Formats: sequence, C-alpha cells, structure tokens
Amino acid sequence: MLKLDVELGERSYPILIGPGLLAQSGILRPYIKGSRVLVVTNDVVAPLYLENLLASLQQDSSLQVDTLVLPDGEHCKTLATLQLIYDELLRQRHERSTTLIALGGGVTGDITGFAAATYQRGVNFIQVPTTLLSQVDSSVGGKTGVNHPLGKNMIGAFYQPQCVLADIDVLSTLPVRELQAGLAEVIKYALLGNHEFLVWLEQHIEALLAGDTALLTQAVKICCEEKARIVAADEREGGKRALLNLGHTFGHAIEAAMGYGNWLHGEAVAAGMVMAADLSHRLGWINADEAARARALIARAGLPVCPPPGISAEQFMSLMSVDKKVQSGKVRFILLRRLGDAVIESDIDTALLQQTLSAGADLCRS
Amino acid sequence: MLKLDVELGERSYPILIGPGLLAQSGILRPYIKGSRVLVVTNDVVAPLYLENLLASLQQDSSLQVDTLVLPDGEHCKTLATLQLIYDELLRQRHERSTTLIALGGGVTGDITGFAAATYQRGVNFIQVPTTLLSQVDSSVGGKTGVNHPLGKNMIGAFYQPQCVLADIDVLSTLPVRELQAGLAEVIKYALLGNHEFLVWLEQHIEALLAGDTALLTQAVKICCEEKARIVAADEREGGKRALLNLGHTFGHAIEAAMGYGNWLHGEAVAAGMVMAADLSHRLGWINADEAARARALIARAGLPVCPPPGISAEQFMSLMSVDKKVQSGKVRFILLRRLGDAVIESDIDTALLQQTLSAGADLCRS
Repeated sequence: MLKLDVELGERSYPILIGPGLLAQSGILRPYIKGSRVLVVTNDVVAPLYLENLLASLQQDSSLQVDTLVLPDGEHCKTLATLQLIYDELLRQRHERSTTLIALGGGVTGDITGFAAATYQRGVNFIQVPTTLLSQVDSSVGGKTGVNHPLGKNMIGAFYQPQCVLADIDVLSTLPVRELQAGLAEVIKYALLGNHEFLVWLEQHIEALLAGDTALLTQAVKICCEEKARIVAADEREGGKRALLNLGHTFGHAIEAAMGYGNWLHGEAVAAGMVMAADLSHRLGWINADEAARARALIARAGLPVCPPPGISAEQFMSLMSVDKKVQSGKVRFILLRRLGDAVIESDIDTALLQQTLSAGADLCRS
Repeated sequence: MLKLDVELGERSYPILIGPGLLAQSGILRPYIKGSRVLVVTNDVVAPLYLENLLASLQQDSSLQVDTLVLPDGEHCKTLATLQLIYDELLRQRHERSTTLIALGGGVTGDITGFAAATYQRGVNFIQVPTTLLSQVDSSVGGKTGVNHPLGKNMIGAFYQPQCVLADIDVLSTLPVRELQAGLAEVIKYALLGNHEFLVWLEQHIEALLAGDTALLTQAVKICCEEKARIVAADEREGGKRALLNLGHTFGHAIEAAMGYGNWLHGEAVAAGMVMAADLSHRLGWINADEAARARALIARAGLPVCPPPGISAEQFMSLMSVDKKVQSGKVRFILLRRLGDAVIESDIDTALLQQTLSAGADLCRS
C-alpha cells in the first residue's frame, strides 16, 4: 500500500493507494473519530462494494454504521439529492461527531463531501473513490458541491476529508467508457505540468486501458502527488490551482450544452484539452507537432478529440461566461506554453478563439 | 462611531456600531472587493432601509448593485429560500468576486451568509443587521445556515463576513416585541459571563426598552465585545463557544414544539434561560435569590419566564436530543455556577431535570 500525505496544516490528510485495500479489515478505523458512521453510496456501486466496506468497518463492533443508497449520475448531483442525505442524518439522529463515508465516483464524493461540510456546520468525512476519475481528481483537494440548472458545481464548499482510500482493484469492474474518462484527467496532469509523465503515458496508455493493476497504481499515485502539490500551494484556488482546470472551461460548456451526464465529465475534458491545445498552437505557443501529439494520446485513450457537432461558437461563449473561472467578465483559459507546462490566460485574441470554437473535427490539425 | 475588531487571524473583521451609520455615504465601500454587489433583504425591512443602503452604495457609481427581496420570517429560513438567492446570483451572472450584503435580521443574515459561504465555494459577505437580536448575536461569529424540518440550524457553515454594520437608529422602527426578544440575548451575555453588565442592565432595562440610543449603543458594544472574545477563543465551537448557547437547548425545543416563528427566538431563549437558572438552583449552584433575580430581570424586559403550557417533559427530552449540542447521545446544558459565570454540563441528575421540565409557571420560585 502506498501512502501519500496532502499537506494542508491542521487539515492535512493521507491518501491510501493500492490493490485490495477495501478487503483489509479495519483499515479506515483510525480515521473515524466518533462512534457513528453514515456510508453514502449509489445504486451502481452498492451491489459491488458496499458489503466489503461494511465488513471492514464492522471489525469494530462498537461502531454504529448506517447506509444510504442514492440514485447514480451527474443529473442527481442536485440540492434535492443533497437534501436526502440531510434527511437521513436527522432521521437517524446523527450528531456532530458522526463521520460520512462517500463510496462511489465523483458525484457521490462531491455531494457527500458537501453534506459533511454543511451538516451541523461540518462533520468528519472520508472518501472511498471507486472510479479512476475520482481517484485521481475529485477525491483529492477538498472541492465539494452540487450543480445548479444554470451552472455546474456552482454551489459548494472547500472541505477536506480525514482520509482518501483508493483501492485499485475496484477499477476492474469499471465500464471501459468510465476508465477512458478517468484517463482524460490522468493525461491532464501530464499535459499541464509533467512532461516525463507524458512520455510514460505514451508508452503505457494501452496497458492502462487494459487494466494493468501495477501501472494503474503508479498512475494514480503520480496524479495524486501532482494534485496534492498544487492544492497544498493554493488550497482555495487563488492562483496556481486553476491550472488543474486545463480543458475544463471548454469541457464544462460541452457538458452544459449536452445536458449534464450525457457526455461524461472526462470525455468533455478530453475534447476541451484538444481545444486548449489547438488554441495554444494558434497563439504560437506550441507547434503543430506538439498539438497533434496531445490529440493523438487523447485519441489512443479512446476519448473524443472534438466537441459534439452543433454547439456554435456563440453558444460556447455564452456557456463559458458563467464559468466560475470568469473574472471581471473575462473568461480565463488554461493553455499550454509547452507540453507539460500550462499557464492561465484571460487576454485571448477573439479571432483565434473563434477559430478554435469553430474548428470541429479539424482541431490540432492546422 | 465605535469600531470593534473580531480577532480571527486572516479572517478578522470589524464591527461598526453607532447611530446614523446607514446614512453615511460610502461607509461600506472599503469592505467591498469587487465591482458587483447583491443586497439580500426581506419584505419588511426593504421599505424601511433599502433605499438608504442603496444611496450609500451608489456613492461609487462604478459599483453594480442588484437587490433581492425575500419573504420574511423564521419559516422562510429553508433550503428553498436559499435556492432563490443562488437563482438570482446565477441569473445576474455574479462571479466569485461578488459581495453579498445581508440587510435584515437574523434570518436574513443566516441565510445570506450561508449563500455566500457556498456560492461558487465562497464569496465575500457583509452583514447589516436591523434587529437588536441580530446586532448583538447572530451577525457576529460566523454562524450561517438554514433550518431543516427536523431541526433548527441543522444545515450551515462557519463563514466570516468582511464587516458588520450595526446602525442603532434602525432599532427605532423595531416592533417592541422584537426589541424585547433582542434584550433576551443581551441579558444572556450578562448571565453567562459579565456580572458587572448584569448590574448595569438591572439599572437600565426600562430605558433600553424605551429605545434610549446612547444606552442601546453601549449595550450592543458590550455584547459584541463579549461575543467577539468568546468566538476569537473558539471559532468552531470546540469548547467555550458553547457557553453562548445559554438558554438555547431548552429554547430550541420550545421553538420546535411551537413551530418555528410562532415564538420569537429571543422569547424562547428567555424562557430557556429561566429554565437553566431553575435547574442550576435545583443542582445547588445558585441560590433561590439569584434564580429569582435572573427571572425578575427577564420579566422586566417583557419576556416570557416559562415555556408555553402543554409541552410535556417527554416532548422536551425528545426535542432536545436532536440538538446540535448533543454529544455521544448526551444532551449538553449550559448552566449557571453563579450569576455571570456559566458552565457546560452533560451529566445532569435526570430527576432534577424532570422537575425543571415540569415546573411551568413555578420556575425559579422554589
């Protein structure tokens, strides 16, 4: 088992990474402060892993464990679903000393984390991410929240867990489309800040897609290290943390245009990263070969390399203008100075931006 | 104008106290970071003070100010009302750099503060409390939140404002019943930690009720100092801050039993403080004269000195057991060692507690 520490002063916490962790009896016990737990999961993950987690928790028979199974999917990441968690906590009379455990993907983690941040003004919280995407991204860094009909993740809080448990074995039951979506965020870390990791991914992308446990463990570890480093330097996204949004300004617009959940988040980010690479090339920062190289890796991971047809440049502009990354009316883009070196830019030549927004299948092929 | 600082490290902020502050042009401008503001108020306060506040803000013509008028009352302190604030913020495309200003009493402040804590994971926030209760209590200390049908303030966050503006002149339009309810919290500070202030209140209670501006300014200042001191020592209520809940364990049960809003919060706390004094006397901590003295001051302020008839001891126990102050299934009480010296206790003789819960009009008359 690998153990990584996210350094946030009194809010520091460990990430445990490796195969077979959920089967380890009592592994989470040191991170549970009180005597009660509410496990929040979803109807897809519950039949697969809830029993394992409960068995591990019940090693300590004094622990009183309740469970709540929510419907799955991005369209359920709403205030209405959040209210179901509050209802259950109050019906079962959970106190301030309770611990919420999120067992599931990013949606489950984000909504459970926000419930933990706001139930009785804050209770303890543990993440057990069961998708590659949530293991490398959403479970680390303390962003929690729900969507609003007018914007994704518009309601939320920064709130750190006591611990994150990333069991690599659970990835074996992940649908291939979700594994691919997770690889989009893996590729993101390479493109934004780790050229060496980019080369490693170009060597191993097919083996990762095939589910190689040792390689996946290594990839999750590197991604968590990259994210932990960036989050430790900028917990509340005053500056550098925004780099983690590479591909997300475009990606969120795609998700909103398609209706949340029709494109997976990782798929939208993948297309968004190709758009970011394309715009970076039009700005003269990366050359045509580098742009093509970014696109090629994303394609090899089985991910979309352009936005769905039918989103006009005007619709993109409108959707991007409600993004949280907007400052003083200006959309902020995360772009590539080089492969492995991203920067934050809000003064972008509108004509070049329009070209990227209209390029469709020709992105990174100029 | 008096200026008090709440010392919370990088989250420190000033409280401005005095008559005529809302009429001062530009008084809030130094505390607004961006160029946009959403003023959230309610339909009772808006006709009285919204114009004044807008005039003061419009001293800076570059500031873009939107307003949202909510329905008033404790029964509106819900997730549904909170959603109206999110809707407005997104409809008007407010960004992370926006500032929310709460103009109103505790309900408006709590719900607006929670919206600020959670919109885009946190935006700036200013409190302009317009009731005595919110000036001395709810606007200071960073507790924000909404009620759940199964419990008051069960959903919320600790979130500090940039500034609190307490204009004493606005108290002149306050219905006498609300002024009385505010005096309950004023008396609370004296009973829990300031015997000298208790003697001062016994001298001036009728003049305060009559709306004497100089005395009210003095009282608000002392209460804010007391609260600021306690909050600075224990921002997230790990310990001593719980003393501020004197009268609240009983009071919340009364509010819940009567339906939120039928008894004012201050009225319920007043009866709760008499119950706390009664129980403290039964425990042998304060003598009969001291208990009677607490009751007498509360009565002189025109406040209830016993719970409404018809709440059984069993109902009290059940309602108190969902209070946020419950730890490991034990209800925690704030009781009086002496007048001006409160303590936190959870090991209470059940028979004595039952006597207090059943005493009705005979509280503090043993």
